[in-house]
Amino acid sequence: MFKLHGIYAPIATPFAGGKIAYDKLEKNLRFWLGSDLTGIVVMGSNGEFVLLSPEEKEELMRFVCGYVKGRKPVIAGTGAESTVETIRLNKVAAEAGAQAVLVVTPNYYKGEMTEQALGRFYQDVADASPLPVILYNMPRNTGVNISAKLAVELSKHPNIIGIKDSGGNIVQIAEIIRNAAEGFSVFAGSASYLYPTLALGGAGGTLALANIFPDECTRLQTLFEAGKMKEARDLQIRLIESNHAVTARWGIPGLKAALDMIGLYGGDPRPPLMPLEEADREELRKILIRTGFFPKKT
Amino acid sequence: MFKLHGIYAPIATPFAGGKIAYDKLEKNLRFWLGSDLTGIVVMGSNGEFVLLSPEEKEELMRFVCGYVKGRKPVIAGTGAESTVETIRLNKVAAEAGAQAVLVVTPNYYKGEMTEQALGRFYQDVADASPLPVILYNMPRNTGVNISAKLAVELSKHPNIIGIKDSGGNIVQIAEIIRNAAEGFSVFAGSASYLYPTLALGGAGGTLALANIFPDECTRLQTLFEAGKMKEARDLQIRLIESNHAVTARWGIPGLKAALDMIGLYGGDPRPPLMPLEEADREELRKILIRTGFFPKKT
Amino acid sequence: MFKLHGIYAPIATPFAGGKIAYDKLEKNLRFWLGSDLTGIVVMGSNGEFVLLSPEEKEELMRFVCGYVKGRKPVIAGTGAESTVETIRLNKVAAEAGAQAVLVVTPNYYKGEMTEQALGRFYQDVADASPLPVILYNMPRNTGVNISAKLAVELSKHPNIIGIKDSGGNIVQIAEIIRNAAEGFSVFAGSASYLYPTLALGGAGGTLALANIFPDECTRLQTLFEAGKMKEARDLQIRLIESNHAVTARWGIPGLKAALDMIGLYGGDPRPPLMPLEEADREELRKILIRTGFFPKKT
Amino acid sequence: MFKLHGIYAPIATPFAGGKIAYDKLEKNLRFWLGSDLTGIVVMGSNGEFVLLSPEEKEELMRFVCGYVKGRKPVIAGTGAESTVETIRLNKVAAEAGAQAVLVVTPNYYKGEMTEQALGRFYQDVADASPLPVILYNMPRNTGVNISAKLAVELSKHPNIIGIKDSGGNIVQIAEIIRNAAEGFSVFAGSASYLYPTLALGGAGGTLALANIFPDECTRLQTLFEAGKMKEARDLQIRLIESNHAVTARWGIPGLKAALDMIGLYGGDPRPPLMPLEEADREELRKILIRTGFFPKKT
Repeated sequence: MFKLHGIYAPIATPFAGGKIAYDKLEKNLRFWLGSDLTGIVVMGSNGEFVLLSPEEKEELMRFVCGYVKGRKPVIAGTGAESTVETIRLNKVAAEAGAQAVLVVTPNYYKGEMTEQALGRFYQDVADASPLPVILYNMPRNTGVNISAKLAVELSKHPNIIGIKDSGGNIVQIAEIIRNAAEGFSVFAGSASYLYPTLALGGAGGTLALANIFPDECTRLQTLFEAGKMKEARDLQIRLIESNHAVTARWGIPGLKAALDMIGLYGGDPRPPLMPLEEADREELRKILIRTGFFPKKT
Repeated sequence: MFKLHGIYAPIATPFAGGKIAYDKLEKNLRFWLGSDLTGIVVMGSNGEFVLLSPEEKEELMRFVCGYVKGRKPVIAGTGAESTVETIRLNKVAAEAGAQAVLVVTPNYYKGEMTEQALGRFYQDVADASPLPVILYNMPRNTGVNISAKLAVELSKHPNIIGIKDSGGNIVQIAEIIRNAAEGFSVFAGSASYLYPTLALGGAGGTLALANIFPDECTRLQTLFEAGKMKEARDLQIRLIESNHAVTARWGIPGLKAALDMIGLYGGDPRPPLMPLEEADREELRKILIRTGFFPKKT
Repeated sequence: MFKLHGIYAPIATPFAGGKIAYDKLEKNLRFWLGSDLTGIVVMGSNGEFVLLSPEEKEELMRFVCGYVKGRKPVIAGTGAESTVETIRLNKVAAEAGAQAVLVVTPNYYKGEMTEQALGRFYQDVADASPLPVILYNMPRNTGVNISAKLAVELSKHPNIIGIKDSGGNIVQIAEIIRNAAEGFSVFAGSASYLYPTLALGGAGGTLALANIFPDECTRLQTLFEAGKMKEARDLQIRLIESNHAVTARWGIPGLKAALDMIGLYGGDPRPPLMPLEEADREELRKILIRTGFFPKKT
Repeated sequence: MFKLHGIYAPIATPFAGGKIAYDKLEKNLRFWLGSDLTGIVVMGSNGEFVLLSPEEKEELMRFVCGYVKGRKPVIAGTGAESTVETIRLNKVAAEAGAQAVLVVTPNYYKGEMTEQALGRFYQDVADASPLPVILYNMPRNTGVNISAKLAVELSKHPNIIGIKDSGGNIVQIAEIIRNAAEGFSVFAGSASYLYPTLALGGAGGTLALANIFPDECTRLQTLFEAGKMKEARDLQIRLIESNHAVTARWGIPGLKAALDMIGLYGGDPRPPLMPLEEADREELRKILIRTGFFPKKT
């Protein structure tokens, strides 16, 4: 079975003229496939999945898997508010050729998303999914948390292979690592705490920042696994500011502006998301330069 | 233009065998149309709109408008995460024959839903919508608040006619009423603060509880408008506990169980929502009985 | 026994040279005693009670009660983190001549302030207090809420006569009014929801704004009790902006600046509270003028 | 100047008959002084400092410093709501013989505790303090956060030597470590994230759990500093559950019950804190046993 390990980029979805711009996406994919990244995630939060129609989602999964053609693993974000739609998308992902699915918590009916309801949801999804399932905890967007207790319980399901925890609660991450079933992988959901997650026994991360700096993010894990703690830590600390810029501070508009800056295609996000304003772009550019990784030395 | 006033029920969507049960819905609609309700809202939060596919949404709007045939106004909940899908659904609602649309705030990208982004979203939607637009503030589900300042600003748009405020912040409600453009209607989003909303100059409410007790909810406003303050207040206070049961406490599972109890069809909600457990049903029944409005005296 | 009803001002504590400025306080008290206010609260949140030493608290209660000499009721804020200190201050308040005590929830150990612990605290305090006790719910400052359920339970204690609810949750206020023991008074904790509180059966309010506009705040209740709903509501809506300015927006620094503006003594708050900055003072002045109550017409 | 490094226990304050039980404290101190702990903190959150009168605080600092007599460093928690009282207690701490002071954020007037106000507070305190000052960030109790930006700015003050960060936000901790002035120490405020804090370059911790397991907590840092990453990490993971029990889960009542269990004196906390109930004691005992560190093997 597919084993979750390493650094993945949750790739941005490029738009032009209100439609998915597949030619631009191809160009971006070429860059990511040529990088040190372990793999990619299509239709994560950074992929604006909630702004895509069901038809666009199907088409996008097919395109990406078709283009990547097994050169790196592809994980598809298939979480939807309803159980049945999530399962349907999982089947499409399998047909398209993805290696695993990433399933965010349903979240509009927060008050009803008890441990019991979430547990049932993930079990139903995992039972019916032809691909291994990765839990996706994203409290900042969902207002719902997958507790350590629930993650540990779900880790026993043979078709649930890991969690991407974007909550950033390092104690929760430690508790999941400690108590989860053997073989269950814990992924940092953000570059800002990749190093502490690895230090506690995590398996890698799915990092917005890896869209921009795939080699640098991957290097952090390589250094860590080679026992070069000081270098890993220094690199961690260097990545925090730029990661913050393309996540909590400016979100997808920031990520897409950064893609434009490094020579890929970012373009505008889909409304209601708004493009980054000029003054913020200037500041973002300075932040990218301060990393020392941009512009690339040749 | 359509004027928002009175008591609306945001109707539940009945399911059977995983599909919308139109025969059951017809039975329920007969009850609501025969009641004192001013009108109905299809695909509000209580209608499990986020659990419906785009095709189901279209079909449901057409069915309800077709069945109601103008006997009472129908408002359609058309809010979606993306601006373009919201506008598309507004057009379908207009073709189906709805009187207005209720548009919830986009909410997955909470961090990006600034005043500016929300303002742009509603203006784009209102500009393109063939039907008058009602703002829908639902912070408990969305984690996003439409501030009094933003609501007041949007009230000036000729195609934005009111707000359903389900936040329950009575000071915010008072500020909107005070400062909004002439003719803009403020609706309580929950029966628990209908009376204070009316007392401050609100125009009515869209109330989950009106699914169950349509005449009693409507009577509160009738009493208030007849200057019978004491009776209105006493009725308000009587409605709080049962309203709480079918909203914050047990949500849609509670509402559907209550529909079953009063002789309509509730049925199970769509997963991941879970049906109310037996012990909770017993307690809910007691709460309904304590209102004195159930079972109906004949 | 003392009956809680009407409008109280939770008076500011004036400082000069790092000490309580009793001469300034005397001047302010003359104004409040000459107004339509029902009574005053010394050492409420607006009185900077957490910034006073135990000795200052004792002295201040004695001074105020001595000066007021029964012309209006005086309520003393005696809540402290520890039960024993609260009880001690209650005894001093009784000796000083106060009519009742206002007791805020202990709050530093939020995690331990369960319903059970809060219930025990208030029962112990009420059992030992020579004066009637008023519960003080102030979640914005304390991070702790006295639930409707707890307030109702405590309302049965013979020495607990009411609650000042500064949480602003109008449904919670309605539930307390509905279910509390006979004779238990519910007070709005802020002018912004005085009218809805009265409309639901509340007994009055303790209002920061009553420091500045005592007659206008009192008039709202007089109008309401005379059945002049429209006038009461219009006055309510006029008071919201200025009330917001001296509470949530600028807090005690705003209140003290406003006192200076209307010709009383505000002065600087005690550090770490900082005096209002010049630009904010200008804006505050405009807000006061917009009320139409300032400057006083003669 | 005093350099903050290593593991400190924020010691519990024992009570008997409503008074500080100095004989019991002496017994406990003997244990802590005989352990591997670097030092102790008197009147931290675990010392129930908000439940002590000013006189008790003075007496307690004098007693502890007098008993310890320089055998280990003593840090005194002197934070109070008012600047002037904080400075006064700092002087008493210096006279008593403490090495440094730990100053929590003022917090009752949360709305006014802006970066600017907090910055001014700490600068005034540090300017006037005869002892080096340690910032104390405790958002769970205070509802106030010292941001990385503010901590970094304050780190430049010559009399501010470190921070105890009990917020647990590992990214904030990383940012402070990265950007603070040379020589500024960052301490974990809880045993649950001691290892990740050290891994990022932190200097140690002040840990409730160190009251109970002083040698084990200290060993974690020793292992880390010896480069034994795997052992350090395993120990970290073993400490989480018991640490949770004496902090977030059961707070001071849990800590005091655990002290009783290991043969020290815990006793009852001061009301309104309530002693741990019997069933919870049983569960706590099991948790302590599960650590493998209790009961001590001889």
